[in-house]
Amino acid sequence: MDSQAFDADAALKERAVRVIPGGMWGHQNSARLPAGYPQFFSGGEGCRSRDANGRSYIDYMCAWGPMILGYADPDVEEAAARQRAEGDGFNGPTPRLVELAELVVDVVPHADWALFSKNGTDATTACVTTARAGTGRRKVLVARGAYHGAIPWCTPSVAGVTEEDRAHLVPYDYNDVESLEAAAESVKGDLAAILVSAFKHDLGKEHVLPTSAFAQAARRIADAHDAALIVDDVRAGFRLDLGGSWEVVGVRPDLSAWSKAIANGRALAMVTGNDRFREAATKIYTTGSFWTAGVAMAASIATITKLRHVDGVAKMWGAGERLRKGLQAQADKYGLPLKQSGPAQMPVFLFDGDGDRSLGNRFCLEALARGVYFHPTHTMFLSVAHTDAVIDETLEITDEVFKAIA
Amino acid sequence: MDSQAFDADAALKERAVRVIPGGMWGHQNSARLPAGYPQFFSGGEGCRSRDANGRSYIDYMCAWGPMILGYADPDVEEAAARQRAEGDGFNGPTPRLVELAELVVDVVPHADWALFSKNGTDATTACVTTARAGTGRRKVLVARGAYHGAIPWCTPSVAGVTEEDRAHLVPYDYNDVESLEAAAESVKGDLAAILVSAFKHDLGKEHVLPTSAFAQAARRIADAHDAALIVDDVRAGFRLDLGGSWEVVGVRPDLSAWSKAIANGRALAMVTGNDRFREAATKIYTTGSFWTAGVAMAASIATITKLRHVDGVAKMWGAGERLRKGLQAQADKYGLPLKQSGPAQMPVFLFDGDGDRSLGNRFCLEALARGVYFHPTHTMFLSVAHTDAVIDETLEITDEVFKAIA
Repeated sequence: MDSQAFDADAALKERAVRVIPGGMWGHQNSARLPAGYPQFFSGGEGCRSRDANGRSYIDYMCAWGPMILGYADPDVEEAAARQRAEGDGFNGPTPRLVELAELVVDVVPHADWALFSKNGTDATTACVTTARAGTGRRKVLVARGAYHGAIPWCTPSVAGVTEEDRAHLVPYDYNDVESLEAAAESVKGDLAAILVSAFKHDLGKEHVLPTSAFAQAARRIADAHDAALIVDDVRAGFRLDLGGSWEVVGVRPDLSAWSKAIANGRALAMVTGNDRFREAATKIYTTGSFWTAGVAMAASIATITKLRHVDGVAKMWGAGERLRKGLQAQADKYGLPLKQSGPAQMPVFLFDGDGDRSLGNRFCLEALARGVYFHPTHTMFLSVAHTDAVIDETLEITDEVFKAIA
Repeated sequence: MDSQAFDADAALKERAVRVIPGGMWGHQNSARLPAGYPQFFSGGEGCRSRDANGRSYIDYMCAWGPMILGYADPDVEEAAARQRAEGDGFNGPTPRLVELAELVVDVVPHADWALFSKNGTDATTACVTTARAGTGRRKVLVARGAYHGAIPWCTPSVAGVTEEDRAHLVPYDYNDVESLEAAAESVKGDLAAILVSAFKHDLGKEHVLPTSAFAQAARRIADAHDAALIVDDVRAGFRLDLGGSWEVVGVRPDLSAWSKAIANGRALAMVTGNDRFREAATKIYTTGSFWTAGVAMAASIATITKLRHVDGVAKMWGAGERLRKGLQAQADKYGLPLKQSGPAQMPVFLFDGDGDRSLGNRFCLEALARGVYFHPTHTMFLSVAHTDAVIDETLEITDEVFKAIA
């Protein structure tokens, strides 16, 4: 048998289609990517991951965000292994719960308290429920096109969703103060919360940071209506600012939802809140079988501690800037209409006039073939393991990519 | 400093109340138990867990269900460690996803496919959404008093919940064919699903297995209305029958929700379904950042394999019967109105005429003081690590307990 010719990814896909609807579900379904992307992965270290065929990539998705220190970070793994030896899930939490909540309250300025769960959706949902319990009101303002999770009240697909699931959501446009004000006025007296993403990171669209005017208006309108300001920091949390992404615009929410990167890959999500919503948070009932497990919490403590110690945010920003400048110079050199947006640590690469995505897809596939894993439409993620040397290695490859597609 | 006098659990609780609303949330909040129960845990092996003060218990909660082979089962830990060395979360799943789905389809007769997530609530919600997507209808019949998760459509507390969250739920009484029929008739033409628990295991109430008549009626009514029959096997899955809990009554659902014990404590949940709902499952959008992580799936493969190999269900049933008979003899001897119910592997112990729970609470507290962890109102859980010797050790203790409270 010619082992070179054996395509493990294709073989796994063939088996998968028999026992998994459509062969895969959700955001990691490779059918959502241009043909050529691998579906299955078998290893990773630092900024590199390896697919089931053993091909290694400089990985700019970081498992869709979680790997903020890189795959298999030794400090996080050591802390997790230590906790694993002590134990994980019991009839109650481990002491790590208290230590982690104390650390979070110390690191996140708006946080007077924290609750933990497993999915980003758990956290966004608990924020909305807490806001409703605290205000006794129902309406939640949500930006058009924003992603806040994957259960009926928020999932992007409407299959299996009823009208009532979204009965109390009121749309506004991100960074548009007037539309936010109008949305709030339209439900005056029944406004529970304004829900905002850390920044505008809608799929396939330019990513835009919140303007200072918008952030301040959101705070002001929430206060004027006695409603909660909720920041959905699930995707961005700990990459823009350890204290929460809206620290960069100087506005503090009442409640925030976190997940993805907070435990460097271990399943963990979190709600942070201020004292105004502390009592409301005791009234709602939200829970799960694995929410107090100690290993993910030990991993989170190690992750936060290391991010602080190495100034992880600055490192990721620096690497992202280096990549951005290098790519821009290459795009200019080859005359390609690359349009980079988003914070440097969480970029998206689109091309002007690329309505059918053919240029973006080709760019990503040529990079993939040369060992760089980009995503053509989704927010990408840098990690602390993306050093300057890795960025330079990437740029050598992208120079070839631009040349190939120019 | 007198280390004997230091109460680590009390000290942790005092710290927790500052940084966690009410000091704890959800089902593991020890404030929901009689005073005297520990909140924090620091270790466990087999059928025993250890609280933060180092007190060891024969544990009849098994972390509220997950530890079906016992804490730190060596075979599961080895499989998990092997996968951890290869990696956990990536840009796509690991090959363990396919292997686990294949194993589940092999073990569970009604399963033509499987999807994985993290919480029991993820799985029950995805079942309902899939049923709605597949039928194009909205109404879901739900038994009065049944627990199906902790987000607004199903959570037991109504704080922060709107009327619309439950607009399409229609109540019936478990094991009451007439009420089920009437509920289905009342929404004729709009019935998406009948949702049933594996057995009636409502908090603080006698636990009752489904009657054969009820199970068959549920299947018949679902078919007559072209709706889905969904079994919520989150709590019971793999303890009554590896093929799903309704195998014991000979009725196969279209969709099932699983979690808790399926990976012996690792965070994992699952939906299984038949071919009728395969396409519907490809239409809904349900996903999460950690849902394809390989370590929990490797743990699940090892858990199912071992449960099969050691005939885990029979072992748990045998141990449960031994405990039940022993307790009954002791209750008779001391003249106490103990009322045991539920399957032997998942019992609940109540006392006749104990409206204020004073007798049940005392029974549990006296057992706790002697090193046996029972729950006064919730379903309990036996594991494969609860050997006959452990049951006999328990019964020696409960004899003292009955004597003390008689």
